[in-house]
Amino acid sequence: MRYFLYLAYDGTDFLGWQIQPAGRTVQGELEQRLSTMLRRPISITGAGRTDAGVHASQMVCHLNLDLSLGEMEQVTYRLRRFLPPDIALLEVRRVTEDAHARYDAVSRRYGYHVRTKASPFTRKYCTLVLETLDFAAMNEAASHLIGEHDFTTFSKKHSQVKTHICTVTEARWVRDSSFGECCYTFHITANRFLRNMVRGIVGTLFEVGRGKMEPSDFGDLLTARDRSLCGSSAPSEGLFLEEVTYPASIFEFDQ
Amino acid sequence: MRYFLYLAYDGTDFLGWQIQPAGRTVQGELEQRLSTMLRRPISITGAGRTDAGVHASQMVCHLNLDLSLGEMEQVTYRLRRFLPPDIALLEVRRVTEDAHARYDAVSRRYGYHVRTKASPFTRKYCTLVLETLDFAAMNEAASHLIGEHDFTTFSKKHSQVKTHICTVTEARWVRDSSFGECCYTFHITANRFLRNMVRGIVGTLFEVGRGKMEPSDFGDLLTARDRSLCGSSAPSEGLFLEEVTYPASIFEFDQ
Repeated sequence: MRYFLYLAYDGTDFLGWQIQPAGRTVQGELEQRLSTMLRRPISITGAGRTDAGVHASQMVCHLNLDLSLGEMEQVTYRLRRFLPPDIALLEVRRVTEDAHARYDAVSRRYGYHVRTKASPFTRKYCTLVLETLDFAAMNEAASHLIGEHDFTTFSKKHSQVKTHICTVTEARWVRDSSFGECCYTFHITANRFLRNMVRGIVGTLFEVGRGKMEPSDFGDLLTARDRSLCGSSAPSEGLFLEEVTYPASIFEFDQ
Repeated sequence: MRYFLYLAYDGTDFLGWQIQPAGRTVQGELEQRLSTMLRRPISITGAGRTDAGVHASQMVCHLNLDLSLGEMEQVTYRLRRFLPPDIALLEVRRVTEDAHARYDAVSRRYGYHVRTKASPFTRKYCTLVLETLDFAAMNEAASHLIGEHDFTTFSKKHSQVKTHICTVTEARWVRDSSFGECCYTFHITANRFLRNMVRGIVGTLFEVGRGKMEPSDFGDLLTARDRSLCGSSAPSEGLFLEEVTYPASIFEFDQ
């Protein structure tokens, strides 16, 4: 049987999602705890990767387990108590046998949190920006991202993807009280994301917000397809993978 | 000139407010950074103490500085950038020369945060309780706290206070979305608090919430004035000092 695990994690103390030869990763912790609990090697496949320090309020991965839904409920109960405190298991769903957490994802949504006033309680989840940011200008700039574009400008060099074309369906800053007052969140949704793309976009939008770049110039950067034009990456602590969406057909076992 | 500093801090990595011969404390960090910045020994007096791991969304302390309000603004600006990330300076107010952060405090308010569902992002600020808690019963029990009572039952042994009498003006559980869904906060306000009092009260209220104690029995515990009857202390991570209140007269310099 194939299952999707829905997870949340605090990325602060992880070297990212993907398992590595050395160092603590979310995939590594999950595979190790599941393997210990079930007494056989378990491997999981994530919907994507998050970089070191990046959080997820919803990450999805799939795994195969020869367990009925009833047995799976037991495993879920035990796993919840066995996971480290910086990973939470939100939900377990049975999916069709060929459902794939990465290839079947229809869209992904990221959130980037900014605070304009220091708070000791959100410092690991919001990027502190003490300069005044012009969010209206940043939103005008961000509107250029909507649609199907080549995102080479906002991609990392040497990334192994065949195409830099992504379709962005949402890209806007909103006031957000979820982390207290003086907080703004950038929500961006696309069918796929390139490595470093969100942090490159946010870092460049900061330059617009500080008045160092015009919103229309931001649009020109995108069409230039030149990664040397990208601003510096925004820090990892403000970035959350928020949602991964799948076609309803893979959840045919849901009541 | 005497000034009040309003502070917030994440207590996770502190041994508490009060300076100690060894170990990191909030008072110690503040005095050290202020002394370094101003190149002379600076000592501060807090409104009270918080124990190891306890947070403050608003703590107050006083200090004397021969600086005009204009010079103080400069110091505030520099101090904000010089403080460690787990302490934030919220506000600086000039007060009358004899104003005392501890003795002049009229009331203090604490908040105790509980979550009934795990979250990696609030684990350091909310206590996770996976059992079902009957908040209505806990509120019925908490109503016995209102008024002037001897709180010996909820005090630590060997505390050096002369009296255990406190006047509680607020003691109730409310649903609270500030830390996300499934969060409840216990707000308690009193003219003064004894050491361990809030955590002792909350730990005992948990027993009521789990159905192990009747709300009326909780009232009997209080009147028994017997600290052996107190439940185990609730963990420190859920506890916040939320507010310290002073008479308006000490702020005569405010416009």
